[in-house]
Amino acid sequence: MSPTNTEQRVAVLLAPERIAVESRPVPDPGPGEVQVAVRAVSVCGSDVHYYDHGRIGGFVMHGPLVLGHETSGVVSAVGDGVEAPAVGTRVALEPQRNCGRCEQCVRGRYHLCPWIEFFATPPVDGSFAQYVTVPAHRAHPVPDTLSDDAAAMIEPLAVAVHAAGKADIGPGTRVLVTGGGPVGLLCLQVARACGAAHVTVSDPVAHRREVATGFGADTAVDPGAGTDLPPADVVLECSGVQAALDLAIAATAPAATVVLVGTGAQVTLPLDVVQARELTVKGTFRYAHVYPAAIALAASGAVRLDDMVTSHHDLDGAVDALLAARRDPGAIKAVVRPG
Amino acid sequence: MSPTNTEQRVAVLLAPERIAVESRPVPDPGPGEVQVAVRAVSVCGSDVHYYDHGRIGGFVMHGPLVLGHETSGVVSAVGDGVEAPAVGTRVALEPQRNCGRCEQCVRGRYHLCPWIEFFATPPVDGSFAQYVTVPAHRAHPVPDTLSDDAAAMIEPLAVAVHAAGKADIGPGTRVLVTGGGPVGLLCLQVARACGAAHVTVSDPVAHRREVATGFGADTAVDPGAGTDLPPADVVLECSGVQAALDLAIAATAPAATVVLVGTGAQVTLPLDVVQARELTVKGTFRYAHVYPAAIALAASGAVRLDDMVTSHHDLDGAVDALLAARRDPGAIKAVVRPG
Amino acid sequence: MSPTNTEQRVAVLLAPERIAVESRPVPDPGPGEVQVAVRAVSVCGSDVHYYDHGRIGGFVMHGPLVLGHETSGVVSAVGDGVEAPAVGTRVALEPQRNCGRCEQCVRGRYHLCPWIEFFATPPVDGSFAQYVTVPAHRAHPVPDTLSDDAAAMIEPLAVAVHAAGKADIGPGTRVLVTGGGPVGLLCLQVARACGAAHVTVSDPVAHRREVATGFGADTAVDPGAGTDLPPADVVLECSGVQAALDLAIAATAPAATVVLVGTGAQVTLPLDVVQARELTVKGTFRYAHVYPAAIALAASGAVRLDDMVTSHHDLDGAVDALLAARRDPGAIKAVVRPG
Amino acid sequence: MSPTNTEQRVAVLLAPERIAVESRPVPDPGPGEVQVAVRAVSVCGSDVHYYDHGRIGGFVMHGPLVLGHETSGVVSAVGDGVEAPAVGTRVALEPQRNCGRCEQCVRGRYHLCPWIEFFATPPVDGSFAQYVTVPAHRAHPVPDTLSDDAAAMIEPLAVAVHAAGKADIGPGTRVLVTGGGPVGLLCLQVARACGAAHVTVSDPVAHRREVATGFGADTAVDPGAGTDLPPADVVLECSGVQAALDLAIAATAPAATVVLVGTGAQVTLPLDVVQARELTVKGTFRYAHVYPAAIALAASGAVRLDDMVTSHHDLDGAVDALLAARRDPGAIKAVVRPG
Repeated sequence: MSPTNTEQRVAVLLAPERIAVESRPVPDPGPGEVQVAVRAVSVCGSDVHYYDHGRIGGFVMHGPLVLGHETSGVVSAVGDGVEAPAVGTRVALEPQRNCGRCEQCVRGRYHLCPWIEFFATPPVDGSFAQYVTVPAHRAHPVPDTLSDDAAAMIEPLAVAVHAAGKADIGPGTRVLVTGGGPVGLLCLQVARACGAAHVTVSDPVAHRREVATGFGADTAVDPGAGTDLPPADVVLECSGVQAALDLAIAATAPAATVVLVGTGAQVTLPLDVVQARELTVKGTFRYAHVYPAAIALAASGAVRLDDMVTSHHDLDGAVDALLAARRDPGAIKAVVRPG
Repeated sequence: MSPTNTEQRVAVLLAPERIAVESRPVPDPGPGEVQVAVRAVSVCGSDVHYYDHGRIGGFVMHGPLVLGHETSGVVSAVGDGVEAPAVGTRVALEPQRNCGRCEQCVRGRYHLCPWIEFFATPPVDGSFAQYVTVPAHRAHPVPDTLSDDAAAMIEPLAVAVHAAGKADIGPGTRVLVTGGGPVGLLCLQVARACGAAHVTVSDPVAHRREVATGFGADTAVDPGAGTDLPPADVVLECSGVQAALDLAIAATAPAATVVLVGTGAQVTLPLDVVQARELTVKGTFRYAHVYPAAIALAASGAVRLDDMVTSHHDLDGAVDALLAARRDPGAIKAVVRPG
Repeated sequence: MSPTNTEQRVAVLLAPERIAVESRPVPDPGPGEVQVAVRAVSVCGSDVHYYDHGRIGGFVMHGPLVLGHETSGVVSAVGDGVEAPAVGTRVALEPQRNCGRCEQCVRGRYHLCPWIEFFATPPVDGSFAQYVTVPAHRAHPVPDTLSDDAAAMIEPLAVAVHAAGKADIGPGTRVLVTGGGPVGLLCLQVARACGAAHVTVSDPVAHRREVATGFGADTAVDPGAGTDLPPADVVLECSGVQAALDLAIAATAPAATVVLVGTGAQVTLPLDVVQARELTVKGTFRYAHVYPAAIALAASGAVRLDDMVTSHHDLDGAVDALLAARRDPGAIKAVVRPG
Repeated sequence: MSPTNTEQRVAVLLAPERIAVESRPVPDPGPGEVQVAVRAVSVCGSDVHYYDHGRIGGFVMHGPLVLGHETSGVVSAVGDGVEAPAVGTRVALEPQRNCGRCEQCVRGRYHLCPWIEFFATPPVDGSFAQYVTVPAHRAHPVPDTLSDDAAAMIEPLAVAVHAAGKADIGPGTRVLVTGGGPVGLLCLQVARACGAAHVTVSDPVAHRREVATGFGADTAVDPGAGTDLPPADVVLECSGVQAALDLAIAATAPAATVVLVGTGAQVTLPLDVVQARELTVKGTFRYAHVYPAAIALAASGAVRLDDMVTSHHDLDGAVDALLAARRDPGAIKAVVRPG
């Protein structure tokens, strides 16, 4: 299918647990936008959550929604005024569109823009599609050494880079990552790439601990085993589970920083420990300004993205991609290739 | 009574709700220590808590305990090797003694020293006494413009200076102080002194809101009234009450910092808000390195300490001092003058 | 003159030392802009420098230039799409216009935008005029308690707030301000307002030291007198003179921060001292995001702006305003009121 | 020679360019000290400077001086009260002894202690000896995977870790290292280990540029060639040469940080550039708290120390070691093994 076609195929979530592949018009790039032929879309837990429940917290589907936000592709057309990237450029898509004028935007915190539009977050469609459009500066060129799959996974890597950047990880830092899922594995790798002296990953699933070790964890512990964790200067909490946070807080060194990456409704903190150790707890929301950094990190080989891909699917197999992690305990990342 | 006397009077908490004034030997200053004739001891909520319950969380009385840790006095004798302060110097006492050699001490976080000894924290006696000894460098000289009462209250002021220092308060910062008790009033005044653009104090008690306004709050709100709070870049949580924290979190601006000053067993955070606004939550534990700053602030007039004193007592009236806040809703700070 | 007039009077620098008052069209506000009837323009050293030399470093006049950038006024008309401020609002003008799209802008450093346009910086005209236009969000409302003069001087106050914000000034900080001119006096006042424990001002002119003392300096020293300066945790260098910087560096405490506010071609640092004390030296360029903070500070009374005004002039007296500081050693700030 | 021997051999600098190997008593470890049998001492440019000139700036030899401060060894005896490290432990020596009580020490900046004693800095002897004593906590255990040479070079690595820690190097940071000598090569490797996106090394010597490329520089440029350097967010200035600094400043991105690692009498900064880009310039003095980090970094393989060793010498060859870099343009690090 060439960009001169006017129709494309799109996998649409019509209602919870109901996906259909439909034909839709190929979107034209507006002024300042690029049209991108999608090459790979890796599946995120949030996609699965929408598939299951039609909502994540306050974000609720009120109509059909195209899932997918971890996206790579090739620029297929450019709108008025676009100087770069040119048609033919391989890109990783930063799937957010901010207003550019509010207090948050002008202060450089565009990810906190109250008018942000984000792929696959109702009512904004995502990238389980053959073509999408994004603002030109959100289509970040990638080197040829990065595969299409890796370029798609720049998105979750951006989450990890942003989260790690909230702490002061460097040579000598002892890091604890709670949760050995995809984001945990990326946080682990980013912490390593920042020079961390020691990285522990905690996860109740034995297979995930093995995988974490394969990705460079110095120690991988079962939180239920009652093992003492080594003291942590930085915790990257990637599970969203209270028990993991409890374990993590208990393991903190004085003056440690706990970065909350996992999602959930609420967390309870043991105030006496938070006070007695003067802990800092930081929330994170997606990311800003980190795509070039994430691309450089992946290109350097410091983070291994391709090794995290455990299955490939076409658009018709979108449901299989969404359910891959549930069906196969060994699955890490499923990738949809809209073709 | 002169320092050549060998016996002194001390108010001792023998068991919860049971205080007796006893005669005890005047302590000699050891090497590097000074002996201080106590002039004023202001009462802290923690003193009251020990009086009521014999414990605060994990800190439990297992024998008689002298209460009092907010202390001023005059140097009455010096131990070997002490060059300053000299006998006769009026001082505010920093009531902590750290090991000086552990990881926390050598990194400049002496307040987090695991071997810290702190006045009126079991089993370490406090200053409801005529004489105490402290390391010479923990007896901070005060100018004559500071009263004895004010010099005693440098201690809670140090708490507020340390807490405010955890946030980045400066010109333009919008601050919310939750809790209009003594620490809240000090945090309010410190925030003002740091150039805050606007300070709101929330407290359910009308009288406390009036007092807060008198001490410079731009707005004083009743958290139960359902009023919308102005957005806060910095919250100084001085109540230890979950409802106050909930209110505070709701009022935060994006990227705000919440400093936890109040104590309690645990706090629950709405994770979705903490994430969506990328909040930073910081624990605080007492203070370090801030006595000179607190003294300078009080001496400059930017913080009004004497106006916070609502009653005076002698050692025999220690119980009255402890119960002052409970008996009189208008009480802010009771001061014991051991005489 | 009402905003329905189409011609206005403007004082134009035609060439060095040659100013003429001309008639020019009143500018219409473009989309997103406001038109402001100018009330007061305080004179800056940079205006004087252009008057004398027609250039400042690489910024060179190649045609007539309207001077003046410290400006207050009243909104007289609004362009398309402007919701605020409304006609009739008293405002302090932030005299810069940035592109909003470059790397610096999107990272929140709009003052470093390479395409910045700044009042009275060739070839951009300033505000020695009856009417000017600015982007609506650069016209900052001021409370009625601020005079027109004070509202104009929010601009140099913004310089001081930005500079002070580069250091970590708070309770306990010992500050040295080198140079007792207008910017030095503002830095002094801002340091005070941030809770500085002690502020020293150095200036070779006795009168300026007296003025500095009147504005709250704890100590005012003659740098040539060979007096030892008290140790400084923060230096705000406002003179641009090498000798002042030398003195300042010598006075730094270990780990101090030196903020460069004064301008000049180059500075020489004693590397051995910079290293042995691990000093941090920071450049500053105008300001960003600080107008609301500066307005709040002035409105709070913590900074006294009106007391710095030493003469008033109309547009025909623009040359007198520019030369005021040269003719009268007691002059601090001359204000032009275009009328 | 066993630790029960009472005499040892020491290479002493008697006067500039005059070294003799002498017999001296083996020092007994005092309370809290360990005695270390020296295994390897790598040569630093400062050793060479003392050999040539008998002084470095204000530090002047007034009597014989034992050179050498980059030291590894094995604990051979322990003094009273030493719990660790035990006899037989392989250690990297942190060659400084601070007072532990001054303002700098208690604030965690022990390297800025005015009473610091540092190996091979007059009048304190260094480690061109068979035995030395150090405070026990300054003898840092190293894993068996680190060679004796590498353990000695933890000292210059600590310089690089400290310097890099002054900037905020992480994924995405573009780093320029000026000077491809040993410290420059270490800074390069540390920047890499911190996740830097791109590291450029500038050096006028072709061979050094080749070596830098071998150690991971993305680009190695000849500063005299007039090549445009890529923009740098962080500069690690390791040459102490004004021309290198000029080049570096010219290459800075807006808001960049320039860390001064090289030594010299003074540096001149182009004030207009420092201001217009709001640069931060930071001095560095040795290091504090970074030995464990440096050891972890070397042990992880992220920094290659052994590959930097280009010659070995015994104590009698100390002069050869000192002159190695001068005689052989290919020399990087000479190591003395006192045997």
